[in-house]
Amino acid sequence: MNIMKLNGVMPPITTPFKGREIAFDRLKENFQRWNKTKLSGYLVLGSNGEAVYLSEPERIKVIEVAREAIPKEKIMLVGTGMESTVETIRFTNEAARLGANTALVVTPYYFKGSMTQQVLYDHFVAVAEASRIPILLYNVPQFTGVNMESPLVAKLSKHQNILGIKDSSGNIDQLSQIIHQSDKGFNVFVGSATVLYPALCVGAVGGILAVANVLPELCTRIVELYNEGQHTKAREFQNRLTPIAKAVTAIYGIGGLKAAMDMAGYFGGEPRAPLKKAGPEAESIIRNLLEELKDILKA
Amino acid sequence: MNIMKLNGVMPPITTPFKGREIAFDRLKENFQRWNKTKLSGYLVLGSNGEAVYLSEPERIKVIEVAREAIPKEKIMLVGTGMESTVETIRFTNEAARLGANTALVVTPYYFKGSMTQQVLYDHFVAVAEASRIPILLYNVPQFTGVNMESPLVAKLSKHQNILGIKDSSGNIDQLSQIIHQSDKGFNVFVGSATVLYPALCVGAVGGILAVANVLPELCTRIVELYNEGQHTKAREFQNRLTPIAKAVTAIYGIGGLKAAMDMAGYFGGEPRAPLKKAGPEAESIIRNLLEELKDILKA
Amino acid sequence: MNIMKLNGVMPPITTPFKGREIAFDRLKENFQRWNKTKLSGYLVLGSNGEAVYLSEPERIKVIEVAREAIPKEKIMLVGTGMESTVETIRFTNEAARLGANTALVVTPYYFKGSMTQQVLYDHFVAVAEASRIPILLYNVPQFTGVNMESPLVAKLSKHQNILGIKDSSGNIDQLSQIIHQSDKGFNVFVGSATVLYPALCVGAVGGILAVANVLPELCTRIVELYNEGQHTKAREFQNRLTPIAKAVTAIYGIGGLKAAMDMAGYFGGEPRAPLKKAGPEAESIIRNLLEELKDILKA
Amino acid sequence: MNIMKLNGVMPPITTPFKGREIAFDRLKENFQRWNKTKLSGYLVLGSNGEAVYLSEPERIKVIEVAREAIPKEKIMLVGTGMESTVETIRFTNEAARLGANTALVVTPYYFKGSMTQQVLYDHFVAVAEASRIPILLYNVPQFTGVNMESPLVAKLSKHQNILGIKDSSGNIDQLSQIIHQSDKGFNVFVGSATVLYPALCVGAVGGILAVANVLPELCTRIVELYNEGQHTKAREFQNRLTPIAKAVTAIYGIGGLKAAMDMAGYFGGEPRAPLKKAGPEAESIIRNLLEELKDILKA
Repeated sequence: MNIMKLNGVMPPITTPFKGREIAFDRLKENFQRWNKTKLSGYLVLGSNGEAVYLSEPERIKVIEVAREAIPKEKIMLVGTGMESTVETIRFTNEAARLGANTALVVTPYYFKGSMTQQVLYDHFVAVAEASRIPILLYNVPQFTGVNMESPLVAKLSKHQNILGIKDSSGNIDQLSQIIHQSDKGFNVFVGSATVLYPALCVGAVGGILAVANVLPELCTRIVELYNEGQHTKAREFQNRLTPIAKAVTAIYGIGGLKAAMDMAGYFGGEPRAPLKKAGPEAESIIRNLLEELKDILKA
Repeated sequence: MNIMKLNGVMPPITTPFKGREIAFDRLKENFQRWNKTKLSGYLVLGSNGEAVYLSEPERIKVIEVAREAIPKEKIMLVGTGMESTVETIRFTNEAARLGANTALVVTPYYFKGSMTQQVLYDHFVAVAEASRIPILLYNVPQFTGVNMESPLVAKLSKHQNILGIKDSSGNIDQLSQIIHQSDKGFNVFVGSATVLYPALCVGAVGGILAVANVLPELCTRIVELYNEGQHTKAREFQNRLTPIAKAVTAIYGIGGLKAAMDMAGYFGGEPRAPLKKAGPEAESIIRNLLEELKDILKA
Repeated sequence: MNIMKLNGVMPPITTPFKGREIAFDRLKENFQRWNKTKLSGYLVLGSNGEAVYLSEPERIKVIEVAREAIPKEKIMLVGTGMESTVETIRFTNEAARLGANTALVVTPYYFKGSMTQQVLYDHFVAVAEASRIPILLYNVPQFTGVNMESPLVAKLSKHQNILGIKDSSGNIDQLSQIIHQSDKGFNVFVGSATVLYPALCVGAVGGILAVANVLPELCTRIVELYNEGQHTKAREFQNRLTPIAKAVTAIYGIGGLKAAMDMAGYFGGEPRAPLKKAGPEAESIIRNLLEELKDILKA
Repeated sequence: MNIMKLNGVMPPITTPFKGREIAFDRLKENFQRWNKTKLSGYLVLGSNGEAVYLSEPERIKVIEVAREAIPKEKIMLVGTGMESTVETIRFTNEAARLGANTALVVTPYYFKGSMTQQVLYDHFVAVAEASRIPILLYNVPQFTGVNMESPLVAKLSKHQNILGIKDSSGNIDQLSQIIHQSDKGFNVFVGSATVLYPALCVGAVGGILAVANVLPELCTRIVELYNEGQHTKAREFQNRLTPIAKAVTAIYGIGGLKAAMDMAGYFGGEPRAPLKKAGPEAESIIRNLLEELKDILKA
């Protein structure tokens, strides 16, 4: 069934709001533009989709709209991780029913101290066993305070329903070891755009990158250059990408990411409270960073 | 309306499970025993209640059962914090409708980097303004990775619908400054049983303590001794309490807490996956720690 | 031999500089004023003495000058910890030869990852065995990144040449357990003035406090009040002390401490590079904090 | 004057001990073997040289012996950083007098909280101004708890007496930005062997690597392969190197590194107390890791 290749660049799509409601029309418009790029697929209901701020009916509607907007040849990843194992399984199969190709399952994290490597192993195996679609592990310690170490990932890579991982730790040493120790064919995506190029060097198949919401072409270009063996040029483009990539996630959060989308011709809008929209100073910095990339954006 | 005094010792009650379902009968039995102690009230749907593992219908049923079981003269706190401001308000008013006296509202935490003191201030003020019952702030950095500093708490203490805080940081310096800088009458509860006595010394009104699920009498005795000015004895009892308090939270998590409840004549049972029940070694250590307290448990 | 009682308040004395040289005359003048207070002794060559910036000949001269200035009835502690065990022993016995009553020995810390509890145990036992004067352990994780846990301290407390510990972790839970688990007569000093009162409550014998360089009377008064059982007043004075205590260490470092000394009639002067003197804004804040204590300073 | 090119692989040489004394004869023997390899130079008195455990006379003797053993065409770096600015300058010029080509200057670190980016800037400029030889910055947050961020390094890269940096943070994102933001010709060395290959990809000129004490050929081979554009092979060799690189530093510390040297035909011996030699279990693991590299070691 899943002959779709997992690689390339995917944005964890943002969720547009109009007042208190989700602006589904705007989401569709974003997809129309993204679909014209070389993005290999989309992550729906990821961190940057503000999934933690959406009710379950809203989540379902977002999946439905995304399913309709995403062409069959592009991957549709859906974030389905919950704190409880049973709920994660239930919602993963709900996403499967709604047409997701693969589920991205974050580590549970509220009880950090109890999330040992063994507990995580058992959780992911239980989900993989019960899920009707293949899953991708999601390691994002800066949000969760929980880290999946390479031996754990290597062990999980043997499970036939676990296709890969999105590692957003930003730690290239760890990423490199995950790739080396895991089964052949295990798909490792990097989650930090600032290390996209070195991640490819150590063997990542692609990136799931917030900044790809704003600058899909620049992100996919780096992967292309790498695949063509054009290391110098890939590194140069990485250096162009890094400042804006840093701004729209680490520094200015989702407010910053959405502001950048607005400037780049997508619909960003405001995040949900308690998050705030980017202030004037942040906006001005982001605008300047995008300005400096005009030559690439035009191309 | 809220003439109830906020002080004393309250357990963040655990949620008993029978297989995959909540064992409401067991919960009622636990309440019957707890009600015979000097506990001043209960926290329903706190961290130790595994609230993050309960669906909303389950949460509502837990509140309903608790409301029925909790006598009018005891405080009924309900944990109602969600990631989104709007959802927090909605669920807080739902808890109010179901009879909660006060809501305990945890800091939002998924986007840690964006949870500045200003963002937290705006969130809590919005919740306090819209809530039909008074709220208590909940600061638990070991789970959330977010800390409310004393100037923020002092500022929030001026709001008439914010009655106090549960600070589980374990940091007596911070607790002390929160108390000193906040408005008179602002109720500061400590959330770590290992520092109950020193917290009382610096002015805490009481404790919301996991170990009070197991040893309510020992916990309330410490507060009584402190109130009677019996410092030496209070310190001595604190030293008796500390090892088991450490075991049932920091060391062995909720699995450990529930095992201790089973040994002490309450119903603990197993936590929900991905959490695990305490292993044989943990059980044996916990049993010994309780054994050492036999003289107090009998009294 | 060591019938001197270890308790009360001691300042980790600062080292005054005149240009690039140590201003020994100023140091003597500081001692003249300190000696008129109820300080129980002095820590020479502690962190706040900028010991890490002094050459060995300078260290020796500081000890000699301090030995002459410190009356026999006050304790003379000298900081003698080095990274290597052998060097620590050598310098401890050098301090003994120069008249130190007790040596304060910090945990080695450069190779943090290798400083296991066992390595620390062996180090301290080796030093205690070879030292001609009794030693006090020094735990200061905010500078060293190394923490001595309570079971380790309890084990070391059995050694007859290890008299106590200065714990600057600021962690009252840990301090409390160190006291409870250690041998009777083991002397536990708190190293953070912001938790002096709660530390006394859980059984500390006194404090070794940077702010005691500036406000010795206020610090010793808190200990007196505690000893007299005047808890309310002790807590009140603690609350008066906390803001300035925070400013002169955590916030403005040694530059801030020295500025406060200058304002309080002692000689502070400038720290050694790379440390800097407090800037005008810091000075103004510190001046205001001291101003607010005028009533106590006069008394 | 300094036309020597800074690049390639250098080991931070260990200091061999015989009982309590430095075994200079063994050090000379190590140099004889290392000199036959393609190592571009040596770091004398680095962290792995246990510099913090050496007295100043010992340090001087080590420099003298190294100077004699190091051929003129290889770089002689000497670690000269002290806590105080003045002492750092003094010892740097002492090293210059003894023939060091370049000094490696670690960030001061005891007073972490005071080591702002501005304080570090002023410190390094003062040292660079006064030093008779060029300096290399040394950033090693895992030991110091202090981090030099890329804007600070970029600013310092403009100083003509500051030639480069050894960044041991292991953070490829930061390394990449340091390289991109710094002046052309600023020499960036990576200090973590586990990320040697990706560091080269983002533009590092080489590595100063503990494991190069043991396996100089494997380390220099990776740099050669990278320079020849043989990415696949370089990555493959990196994956072979990583497990032993991890073992001899992060996991088993200097005891582990010295054990590995003994097994690989160098003289390792025991570290100084409080460090301990590797235990039997560590030794056995290290032996197996080296065994797995036999094919490379022979070549």
